[in-house]
Amino acid sequence: MQALQKKVVAALVLGMTAVLAAGAKELPPRPSVGDVLKGSKPGDWRPLDADNTLYLELPQGRVVIELAPSFAPNHVRNIKALAREHFYDGLAIIRSQDNFVVQWGDPHEDDEQARQVKSAQKTLPGEFTVPLSNDKQFTRMRDVDGFAPQVGHSGGFPAARDPKAGQTWLTHCYGMVGVARGNESDSGGGTSLYVVTGHAPRQLDRNITVVGRVVAGMPILSTLPRGPAPMGFYEQPGMQVPIGAVKVAADVPEAERVRLEVLRTESPTYQAVLDAQRNRGGPWNKYSPNYLDLCNAQIPVREQKL
Amino acid sequence: MQALQKKVVAALVLGMTAVLAAGAKELPPRPSVGDVLKGSKPGDWRPLDADNTLYLELPQGRVVIELAPSFAPNHVRNIKALAREHFYDGLAIIRSQDNFVVQWGDPHEDDEQARQVKSAQKTLPGEFTVPLSNDKQFTRMRDVDGFAPQVGHSGGFPAARDPKAGQTWLTHCYGMVGVARGNESDSGGGTSLYVVTGHAPRQLDRNITVVGRVVAGMPILSTLPRGPAPMGFYEQPGMQVPIGAVKVAADVPEAERVRLEVLRTESPTYQAVLDAQRNRGGPWNKYSPNYLDLCNAQIPVREQKL
Repeated sequence: MQALQKKVVAALVLGMTAVLAAGAKELPPRPSVGDVLKGSKPGDWRPLDADNTLYLELPQGRVVIELAPSFAPNHVRNIKALAREHFYDGLAIIRSQDNFVVQWGDPHEDDEQARQVKSAQKTLPGEFTVPLSNDKQFTRMRDVDGFAPQVGHSGGFPAARDPKAGQTWLTHCYGMVGVARGNESDSGGGTSLYVVTGHAPRQLDRNITVVGRVVAGMPILSTLPRGPAPMGFYEQPGMQVPIGAVKVAADVPEAERVRLEVLRTESPTYQAVLDAQRNRGGPWNKYSPNYLDLCNAQIPVREQKL
Repeated sequence: MQALQKKVVAALVLGMTAVLAAGAKELPPRPSVGDVLKGSKPGDWRPLDADNTLYLELPQGRVVIELAPSFAPNHVRNIKALAREHFYDGLAIIRSQDNFVVQWGDPHEDDEQARQVKSAQKTLPGEFTVPLSNDKQFTRMRDVDGFAPQVGHSGGFPAARDPKAGQTWLTHCYGMVGVARGNESDSGGGTSLYVVTGHAPRQLDRNITVVGRVVAGMPILSTLPRGPAPMGFYEQPGMQVPIGAVKVAADVPEAERVRLEVLRTESPTYQAVLDAQRNRGGPWNKYSPNYLDLCNAQIPVREQKL
């Protein structure tokens, strides 16, 4: 799906075949991710759980976030409470830093106009890692990783684990959502959240609470104008993007919900998806790395078939 | 520089100190990348070579590309010839795929209005790898990499090498520029180029010719609206972004050039920059990975001091 081709029509019009340049080896064709998904069964997919799905409503459209209660139970509970008390409604996207993150929260956090938290918590102890026993669905990838002893996927999220330490955590791949904090581990709580919009900043792993993943709407966030260097905070209020509302999907009338399903990352089909990315076939590919970077592993999402 | 903080003012206003949450270990403070650069010497920096710098002139501004003749001598020569015969002027950005690439070229490549190449070559044999002897400046990183036996930097570019095969190549990190091709290894030549705008698609390494790196102007490219799935080609011509011109900097009057300098990646200062990213200190960081992903290694660029 991600072959760096000239326009697809070019290959067809020019009738390109497997004639090889001098010195190039030919790789046999292999199933692509698309080919693997065509062979998937209905049971390989699961619908989003409406009680653990957030809608971030922006002027440009809806961003859909799947929450990960296994990895951040207290923060997920608190973020849903914040959404339900309308804490986020009318706040704004306050930051876009190129090749790093987009962040939202209260532009007036530090002045007397700051929005007050009602029934939810303003801060919580960090959930940077959780015990391995929290996670029942980990499927390990065989690929080496520089940041963690083991990497793979759990319940639709990229994850890592350290068996010696007895810890597991979600990893900062593209589209992952985390909880901004100050210097203290317990200074975040979900009133300000960020989404990774660049090359995975894995140095943040185990340093901050990760609560979920954007499953639809990334282009809305990733194309927002970058704020001024170095950190991309929108210093001029006019750059801020107003948040219409953040809603728990379960609170939205069924007819207004987005119907998405995610490939089960514990399924054999997903293992085949990973292998299709690890080893790519000809004719376009001339070299196959036999390796997959955790944060390049696609986690397929599609419209739910009703 | 990339700490995921709440607004910087928050840390100051709230007077955050190094009080620790239960269970969190305190990391000693360490120099940041900014701290290291403050201690750099003038000789640690080199100006861009105007003869190997391209300006991509777009309505939104100028994108500056440093070319890498050591890694793709024939393609670099050809791309400069294409620029000098005004091949690109009036063509367009034709593709933006989320978390992957932006690509430019001739929207009419496949029809009778296709722009013709004059003195330059339309296609060239691929330069996917080059002999190790091409590269005199490699400085190896000690960090493991899943895609290559060795990674590091050479002349300001992220690079990898395989000593057994006697090969070296540039890697597909954020901002790297490559040569689109069809299925054949020799079907590209520089008439269509792409820039990485997402998580590093390292599976393209050794599969395509990489010619350089964007050293200024990435936000212009990274925020372009995404084209339709799956590949992001702008199917409606109205989405295409017209290219005013692509110029070799040496052909531009000196007063109109951008004056940038790049930290020498073979300098001890750059090794300290890498180490500042590999091991980060407190108070913000609670865990330090003691690891740096090649494609997260910043390559500092600044305004030239005259």
